[in-house]
Amino acid sequence: MDHNPVEVASAAQRIKAHVHETPVFSSRLFNDRIGAEVFFKCENFQRTGSYKMRGATNAILLLPEEQQGKGVVTHSSGNFAQAVALAAQSVGIPAYIVMPSDAPDVKRKGTEQYRASITTCQPGLVAREVASQEIIQEKGATFIHPSNDIHVIYGQGTAAFEFLNTHPDLDHLITPVGGGGLLAGTILAAKVHGAKCEVWGAEPYEVDDAYRSIRSGRIETNKTTNTIADGLRTQLGDVSFPIIKDGVRDIIRVNEDEIKAAMKWIWERMKIIIEPSSAVAVAAVIREREQFKNQRVGVIISGGNTDLEPPVFAR
Amino acid sequence: MDHNPVEVASAAQRIKAHVHETPVFSSRLFNDRIGAEVFFKCENFQRTGSYKMRGATNAILLLPEEQQGKGVVTHSSGNFAQAVALAAQSVGIPAYIVMPSDAPDVKRKGTEQYRASITTCQPGLVAREVASQEIIQEKGATFIHPSNDIHVIYGQGTAAFEFLNTHPDLDHLITPVGGGGLLAGTILAAKVHGAKCEVWGAEPYEVDDAYRSIRSGRIETNKTTNTIADGLRTQLGDVSFPIIKDGVRDIIRVNEDEIKAAMKWIWERMKIIIEPSSAVAVAAVIREREQFKNQRVGVIISGGNTDLEPPVFAR
Repeated sequence: MDHNPVEVASAAQRIKAHVHETPVFSSRLFNDRIGAEVFFKCENFQRTGSYKMRGATNAILLLPEEQQGKGVVTHSSGNFAQAVALAAQSVGIPAYIVMPSDAPDVKRKGTEQYRASITTCQPGLVAREVASQEIIQEKGATFIHPSNDIHVIYGQGTAAFEFLNTHPDLDHLITPVGGGGLLAGTILAAKVHGAKCEVWGAEPYEVDDAYRSIRSGRIETNKTTNTIADGLRTQLGDVSFPIIKDGVRDIIRVNEDEIKAAMKWIWERMKIIIEPSSAVAVAAVIREREQFKNQRVGVIISGGNTDLEPPVFAR
Repeated sequence: MDHNPVEVASAAQRIKAHVHETPVFSSRLFNDRIGAEVFFKCENFQRTGSYKMRGATNAILLLPEEQQGKGVVTHSSGNFAQAVALAAQSVGIPAYIVMPSDAPDVKRKGTEQYRASITTCQPGLVAREVASQEIIQEKGATFIHPSNDIHVIYGQGTAAFEFLNTHPDLDHLITPVGGGGLLAGTILAAKVHGAKCEVWGAEPYEVDDAYRSIRSGRIETNKTTNTIADGLRTQLGDVSFPIIKDGVRDIIRVNEDEIKAAMKWIWERMKIIIEPSSAVAVAAVIREREQFKNQRVGVIISGGNTDLEPPVFAR
């Protein structure tokens, strides 16, 4: 599919009124530990708690007015559901969300509060697609894919676009990779706005389809999805894959213990809540710190939506 | 004891190189819920994870050079220990910290990493004072009190000083109150820099000594300290009490369920980690929202140091 990297800047302009410009954090302790200057773009502070608000809003705003009026539909266990719900509310059109019955409670509650119409289905992709098709036929709503849609990808790229505007001299940008929308968008943004910036993906060993795909040259799948990084269990698509294959420096893989340790460190020391998928990118920087020594590294903290039940709440 | 509110601005200048200027966050969701414009001064992002770094640094910098050289000592189960440890390290002098054996793990680890010399004692004030006295006699170190010291109070006031610089039109400022250092410092800062700003304290019903003290006109104590807000179990002192009695609008009391609910809301929705003591101030705004309707309310988020063991880490 054709794509044009300058569309990321247009998307940033288009969605401006609907999203936050998120802050960039850094930590002396973390920098000392890594031996590099690391900057965290905090999309956990984005509206709905993740960068997905960007792509959802861009895709919705680009629909013809008549199609907008009939609403949008997506199926998602997580962040994209909330994003489509709030983006639709923000633009003033109906949203229909299909959620599996095992979706995390915090993500379901988030989606409900944006007044989307929620349909609960059995876990599994087939049930989700069947339920979505029914809504499309009944309501005439337009389906929006969480990652394999070029307008969604341009929207996700606006996080890196903002990041490179405020930090133009980053040597590296790292994002987690699941469906590939954030990574592909970041690659497109860096092409135009980060000339000397290399873009890396980060993914759990347990679902290393992107690592294998850029080596085999075709879209690989995961036989099991045994990772706490619930946002990264999906695979690349035919829109995101070619962009990633051409533009990514490499995919860094991390194990589950590294993900948990990175997440705990950021929570405890930086006092911000990041979800496991975001911790994958932090863990990648820690693991490959020799690679990044004395350089300027930008990490996109993709989101902060995770169930919180520390013992203190149970007392 | 004499005090001069303009000293807060001098303290801000003095400690500048040693502390962060912390960001101010807000939340559309929270504002909609409360019906006011609420701003959160995020001292959880301060160095050592709490505002106490401010007061500790100011007190240390004001010691005569000869006294500085012999080091400083404090006893604390928590945030003041870390603050004195890092402030001493930052200024380049020794720190001796007496910690009870039941101090939260995250606070002990934090103190250790700033290379202070730690003495562990039995829980309880007497054991802490005995251990401190031994160090004072042996090392000639100077004792710094966590709250009942006018230079510490001026330092704590610099959080409100910064807050009123960036948000000069706040109608109200709310801080939690334990020993009273933060509340007293905030009152002094508001006297000079927040002409139309009323200052409130917030405290748990379970340790409502400040509420009772401003009514009885003398320093009241707590018979029990059955609250999750571990930073607020102490009582006012003869330096902080007169400032608070003269300057506070009132103390708002909240119950344990309100504290937990406020803490969970901020974690889940704003993606920042605040400790239970800070949640007391948030809960106070929620409880008294009629009082604050359509006004501009500043809340000082005092810290983010709390043990984190959500189930996700145990998997």
